[in-house]
Amino acid sequence: MSKVRKLYDLAGADPSLRFSPYCWRIKLALAHKNLPFETIPWRFTDKDEIEFSGTGKVPVLIDGEQVVHDSQAIAEYLETEYPNEPTLFNDAATRGLTMFVKNYSETVLQPALARIVLPGIFALIAEKDKAYFRRTREAAFGETIEQVEAKREQYWPVFKSVLVPIRTTLQTQPFIAGPGPAYADHIIFGALQWGVMTSPVPLLEEDDPITVWMRKLLETYGISADT
Amino acid sequence: MSKVRKLYDLAGADPSLRFSPYCWRIKLALAHKNLPFETIPWRFTDKDEIEFSGTGKVPVLIDGEQVVHDSQAIAEYLETEYPNEPTLFNDAATRGLTMFVKNYSETVLQPALARIVLPGIFALIAEKDKAYFRRTREAAFGETIEQVEAKREQYWPVFKSVLVPIRTTLQTQPFIAGPGPAYADHIIFGALQWGVMTSPVPLLEEDDPITVWMRKLLETYGISADT
Repeated sequence: MSKVRKLYDLAGADPSLRFSPYCWRIKLALAHKNLPFETIPWRFTDKDEIEFSGTGKVPVLIDGEQVVHDSQAIAEYLETEYPNEPTLFNDAATRGLTMFVKNYSETVLQPALARIVLPGIFALIAEKDKAYFRRTREAAFGETIEQVEAKREQYWPVFKSVLVPIRTTLQTQPFIAGPGPAYADHIIFGALQWGVMTSPVPLLEEDDPITVWMRKLLETYGISADT
Repeated sequence: MSKVRKLYDLAGADPSLRFSPYCWRIKLALAHKNLPFETIPWRFTDKDEIEFSGTGKVPVLIDGEQVVHDSQAIAEYLETEYPNEPTLFNDAATRGLTMFVKNYSETVLQPALARIVLPGIFALIAEKDKAYFRRTREAAFGETIEQVEAKREQYWPVFKSVLVPIRTTLQTQPFIAGPGPAYADHIIFGALQWGVMTSPVPLLEEDDPITVWMRKLLETYGISADT
């Protein structure tokens, strides 16, 4: 008897385009825990559809009788609920350092990457989401989407520079978390996959250690790159 | 019977001014391992004095019969040599994530901070070191020390932005490595202490969670801030 497990997953105009960095973290975390799941495509403005969960944002996980939202809360729920499956955090020190990786991803990597991928995401999202996306993102960035696009040459070196600690780490060890992947890998992967899936031009070289690691991570979990 | 344990430690013109980020890492790591040590003040150009170690840079640790150089090699040596003392890395995952923190410190934090502190360091180093320091740093930065100083207003926001993941982490947990300090804390502390000791103006606010954590770390190890 297996639980019904469903994940609300952000989608573009094409329902099979799933690019949210926070949803990707959780898809990899679920795979890491060997937990089968279905995804439900969800759009930015489908607030009513997830109202039952108490939030207006994805990821939202339905795990049998339980409903959990917020990627960090979902990761911690999975770690507690499935202690006999491979650990996401291992111990207190790993969990502490994973929080640093999370904060690096959310306050350094994702803001730098957002300025590169914003125009590409705008082009790919559902028509009904465009006004919402434009309003919220332009308020957050203090620039119009078109202004961000025009400054790409200026934002690109910043994005390249914040990749350096990731690449340097992967040059001396197979995963961010060391010999095997853990939730820190899922976090950084999610951010980069968000960019890779929405950029109209290649974001990373084919032979970049980061690209090699991303491919290896998907293979480890048997996940297709565009699921 | 205790070993003779000595650390060659970078000094300014004032021999009691010890500001090297890599030496600070190791001073905290030694304290973490409960290992008493003496420091030997060393200047950039004192290459002959440490020639026996096979390197021209500090930190160099003399631990009884053993000589170890390079901060990462010293940390790993201490972890292996003193397994019954508190661990710096805990396990493979913590060690892996600590490498990410190291790479963040060395490729993001320290380069951003270097541009803020370079003129202050130049003012504080020994007279005999100044030509060496100017030549090597100006080659590394592609700018003269005076040009770096003139661009302070431009470099300051970059420095402030790279502090964000550190501060965000310390707002939800007492140490970078979680509930207790470990080598990841020593790395970030070393970088910031380098700046705090050489900046002519305060680098961090007194009530910044980062300042509070730096003070707590020194208290934990019973180290005086300017040793």
